[in-house]
Amino acid sequence: MRMTRVLLTGFEPFGGETTNPSYDAAVLVPGVSVAELPCTFAGALTALREAVDRHDPELVLCAGQAGGRAVISVEKVAINLIEARIPDNGGRRPYGVPVVAGGPDAYLSTLPVKAMARAVREEGIPAEVSYTAGTFVCNQVAYGLAHLIATERPGLRGGFVHVPYAPHQVTESGQPSMETTTVARALAALVKAADSVEDELPAGAIQ
Amino acid sequence: MRMTRVLLTGFEPFGGETTNPSYDAAVLVPGVSVAELPCTFAGALTALREAVDRHDPELVLCAGQAGGRAVISVEKVAINLIEARIPDNGGRRPYGVPVVAGGPDAYLSTLPVKAMARAVREEGIPAEVSYTAGTFVCNQVAYGLAHLIATERPGLRGGFVHVPYAPHQVTESGQPSMETTTVARALAALVKAADSVEDELPAGAIQ
Amino acid sequence: MRMTRVLLTGFEPFGGETTNPSYDAAVLVPGVSVAELPCTFAGALTALREAVDRHDPELVLCAGQAGGRAVISVEKVAINLIEARIPDNGGRRPYGVPVVAGGPDAYLSTLPVKAMARAVREEGIPAEVSYTAGTFVCNQVAYGLAHLIATERPGLRGGFVHVPYAPHQVTESGQPSMETTTVARALAALVKAADSVEDELPAGAIQ
Amino acid sequence: MRMTRVLLTGFEPFGGETTNPSYDAAVLVPGVSVAELPCTFAGALTALREAVDRHDPELVLCAGQAGGRAVISVEKVAINLIEARIPDNGGRRPYGVPVVAGGPDAYLSTLPVKAMARAVREEGIPAEVSYTAGTFVCNQVAYGLAHLIATERPGLRGGFVHVPYAPHQVTESGQPSMETTTVARALAALVKAADSVEDELPAGAIQ
Repeated sequence: MRMTRVLLTGFEPFGGETTNPSYDAAVLVPGVSVAELPCTFAGALTALREAVDRHDPELVLCAGQAGGRAVISVEKVAINLIEARIPDNGGRRPYGVPVVAGGPDAYLSTLPVKAMARAVREEGIPAEVSYTAGTFVCNQVAYGLAHLIATERPGLRGGFVHVPYAPHQVTESGQPSMETTTVARALAALVKAADSVEDELPAGAIQ
Repeated sequence: MRMTRVLLTGFEPFGGETTNPSYDAAVLVPGVSVAELPCTFAGALTALREAVDRHDPELVLCAGQAGGRAVISVEKVAINLIEARIPDNGGRRPYGVPVVAGGPDAYLSTLPVKAMARAVREEGIPAEVSYTAGTFVCNQVAYGLAHLIATERPGLRGGFVHVPYAPHQVTESGQPSMETTTVARALAALVKAADSVEDELPAGAIQ
Repeated sequence: MRMTRVLLTGFEPFGGETTNPSYDAAVLVPGVSVAELPCTFAGALTALREAVDRHDPELVLCAGQAGGRAVISVEKVAINLIEARIPDNGGRRPYGVPVVAGGPDAYLSTLPVKAMARAVREEGIPAEVSYTAGTFVCNQVAYGLAHLIATERPGLRGGFVHVPYAPHQVTESGQPSMETTTVARALAALVKAADSVEDELPAGAIQ
Repeated sequence: MRMTRVLLTGFEPFGGETTNPSYDAAVLVPGVSVAELPCTFAGALTALREAVDRHDPELVLCAGQAGGRAVISVEKVAINLIEARIPDNGGRRPYGVPVVAGGPDAYLSTLPVKAMARAVREEGIPAEVSYTAGTFVCNQVAYGLAHLIATERPGLRGGFVHVPYAPHQVTESGQPSMETTTVARALAALVKAADSVEDELPAGAIQ
């Protein structure tokens, strides 16, 4: 039985949607703490920090909706750049600004992302490692979490995953989707793999 | 309770797959007869005819796997042309030949395909009307069924639907997928709509 | 030197565009008569008929823009169905009506579409045979031309081809495109192949 | 007239291709020095360094082929990670190793990538800013160039751009393409914009 304290976050709905599969799936995962992050540049990282303070996790996995993607995407890269193409839920649309002024250009995830994607596939669920988390609030949270770990919480481990639309969100648009219960099974597999596999590629490893 | 006798067909696996979501979903639909068709140009239509003879349905819905499609596709058109790009399960690869020598160039489905797609969407499942069933065994069966109805079974109603890959078929390829239980719910909704909605566009209708 | 009289048609711009690559390319093809068709359900077939009457061609190739397609698409099928998803240039949006009341459900092109696609490829230009011309004015013209040939002009040969957007139409959308001069070379190759290759698959041929 | 010394690099063919549009287009751009880089992890950065030493440019733009992309992609991010899915031209397939051991996780381009993409669009050519240069030799060169600038050549400016397949490479595959002459015009516009526009987002800028 897992004893590691795990925090799983999802987002509130955005972009005109009334649900967000990242949060709807997160609450179905057993044995973890769950927090819902606002989809605003002003509030997301504050809410993430509060959830981390409250739950004091050893592992944090943040999930977000990636409309248009067909499979579970474990993010390898978070960049220090915000370029919003649609307004966030607070009506703001920052463009060309860093997540953290003075922060490094990007963080490569130190979670075992390849093993995590493989663990999802072994559950019969499509998954991949992704090398871009976009430039919206999802990437902001991915970068902000990595920066928090690097600068304040060296003992914490964490990463980001994108999930497809739920079927009911795309009944007419023809875009790919994944059942929320399937996403929940994927999240559980990701958490388990992240918890049990050694880091596979420390940043700056000697070849 | 529905009293209409319904035959639902799916295909055996092909193209290197070990399962076929069209058949796996069909057997989950309650209250219908189910038949599995071989994925061979030589055998598919014979098997369809035998299943029709055996079950004597009033409504036939044939389902097939459309790898790469993200949503339930209700087929509007079946053409009198076979152009196989991969071998069928019998190792044959006919190209540029008609399904029925001397048959009409195509059949437009007389089922209420738009209402059927709408019924699936109302279940929260993505669906569309499609205007090409391809040129492989699926189109052969779609055309063969329409031709059987037009020439021998005027009282029978029938049509064809394509379904996406199941998730376990595409864990590594990144292609879109749909849970088999979701496909089964879609098939049930399609059957119900086909059974309860009047034909929406008789071929050659007066405008 | 070719002596066959060839009519090439393209469409006027539609859907908010200010140019249409089908017409812009057609006028670059040497040795053919060219006509521009209006993008209206009410006017397109009348204009086609007038152009046929005026130029008295032996071969007609109608071209249209297929936004989103990446390659030259030689159409094999034209269906007797109009289902407009956007208004035509006359503001009309017919849905679920036949092109010709009482006409056959579809026509399979009797042009050598495979050889035509091959001829384009031999010019170093991407091409394919397509099995759906959609349900908008393009398909109406494809069907109407086939019906004209079948019912009134048995000596005429004709078909339809879809071409991608021109680059300047999609500078921001990220969609595929093809240079108009490249499309013009493709059209010339299509005309030449249609003119020199025997029909490859008469509808209803004995296998 | 531009006096800035510009080096433009393209790659040799790889992945079974016999041409590479990045190099074929580069040699068509007037007023710049051009170098062809080998598509090997062992040789690409050495060749880049030699070309920089030989030509002593003030601006370097490296171009690479991105099969499947439809538009000119100006890369914003280069990551310190190599994960080759196919062998390079030397038969090597490194996976999960950094470009530069001990280097930063990534570099955000300090070129005015948004203005550069806009300049291409103003030429009527589709373009975008991209946030992933992949994990193959292209990304290695993008990262290696940024690292060279950051650690040894502070006066040099440089960046990376991905270009689509040429039409003749994809005649049968149906993938998007762009004429090599069009790519060359895009490269010229990119160089001009990079040369004349101020840096738009210094990494770590104060908001």
